[in-house]
Amino acid sequence: MSIDTLVRDLQLDPETADQLFRTARTAREFTDTEVSVEQIRDVYDLIKWGPTAMNIVPLRLLVLRRGAARERLVPLMAEGNRERVATAPMTLVLAADPAFYQHMGTLFPHAPQVQEQLSQSPEACAPMARTNALIQAGYLIVGLRAAGLATGPMNGMDFDAVDAEFFAENGWQSLMVVNVGYTEGSGTALPRLPRLEFADAATVL
Amino acid sequence: MSIDTLVRDLQLDPETADQLFRTARTAREFTDTEVSVEQIRDVYDLIKWGPTAMNIVPLRLLVLRRGAARERLVPLMAEGNRERVATAPMTLVLAADPAFYQHMGTLFPHAPQVQEQLSQSPEACAPMARTNALIQAGYLIVGLRAAGLATGPMNGMDFDAVDAEFFAENGWQSLMVVNVGYTEGSGTALPRLPRLEFADAATVL
Repeated sequence: MSIDTLVRDLQLDPETADQLFRTARTAREFTDTEVSVEQIRDVYDLIKWGPTAMNIVPLRLLVLRRGAARERLVPLMAEGNRERVATAPMTLVLAADPAFYQHMGTLFPHAPQVQEQLSQSPEACAPMARTNALIQAGYLIVGLRAAGLATGPMNGMDFDAVDAEFFAENGWQSLMVVNVGYTEGSGTALPRLPRLEFADAATVL
Repeated sequence: MSIDTLVRDLQLDPETADQLFRTARTAREFTDTEVSVEQIRDVYDLIKWGPTAMNIVPLRLLVLRRGAARERLVPLMAEGNRERVATAPMTLVLAADPAFYQHMGTLFPHAPQVQEQLSQSPEACAPMARTNALIQAGYLIVGLRAAGLATGPMNGMDFDAVDAEFFAENGWQSLMVVNVGYTEGSGTALPRLPRLEFADAATVL
């Protein structure tokens, strides 16, 4: 399949297709250019519209600027990830909120019984939160790239320790860390790894 | 925050921001216009480049055109979802492949020991597959919208029954169903539900 065919079928300009997926890479090195909280907020305000089951939108963000709070995260990362978390212009801890049902009066106002039912089933809420927050994590990575930012997602970390350090009060459950910034070139010296072909990843019936 | 600010910070043209997130809706009604397998393949060939842990790309697709195979899925959906699955131009069952490690020689060729290690830890592979396939599900929904398609994701279904009916041989584990097609207008008569504000979904430190 040629690139021309791809672009025609996608109804997406090639530069955007590259920016969001095709040439974007997981960044390992960022420039010193800062990333603002306002930029992260704007990305959130874009991707919050992505669909989730019953509109529960359980993704939560711990936004760690440079400073003391970031330093508390560094030792909880796997050793190979510490330097990158310590030096990234911005670091996000993505988390799921198992108590998302507290917001259902706002999020699902036409069915008030749903909040009551969910509040009585915490064992059902935790996996619902995780499943849908992970889908939203996909939206977020695309949204950060849409904002011209490079991302460095990583899950080599002590999740329980992160939850204890940062989420003891609100009960959020960490999913991954995403470093955010700008890069020179691709932001990585690693070669692009292959992906599975459609024929190996899909069954057509 | 004005729309102008949002668009400026996003470095994304407003039409694309709308198409991917801001005005796109979960479709409940599709037109009769068909969706081809080639379109789904092109979307896959876009979103396969999205990042996953150790490049495991565990998302799998069961692509169900109109016909006998689709009819096998319909009764396994929650009652309220059956008519929509029966009538959608295209239906995808998104799944995770816990045996993704079989492809690591292709996907992660520089570290051949990884495939061996993962093959000995099926209990670790299943959650890895689910976590990363869900992130990829987020990419896929964005990618389908990028291709000008409307999506109707749903998870009201009997997952175990779907796995038994379709994935008994390959061991894939179903995550959700996504109906795909074209819509007149938004594809739904339901009002747009609100989302959480950044201040309610994020902690800034």
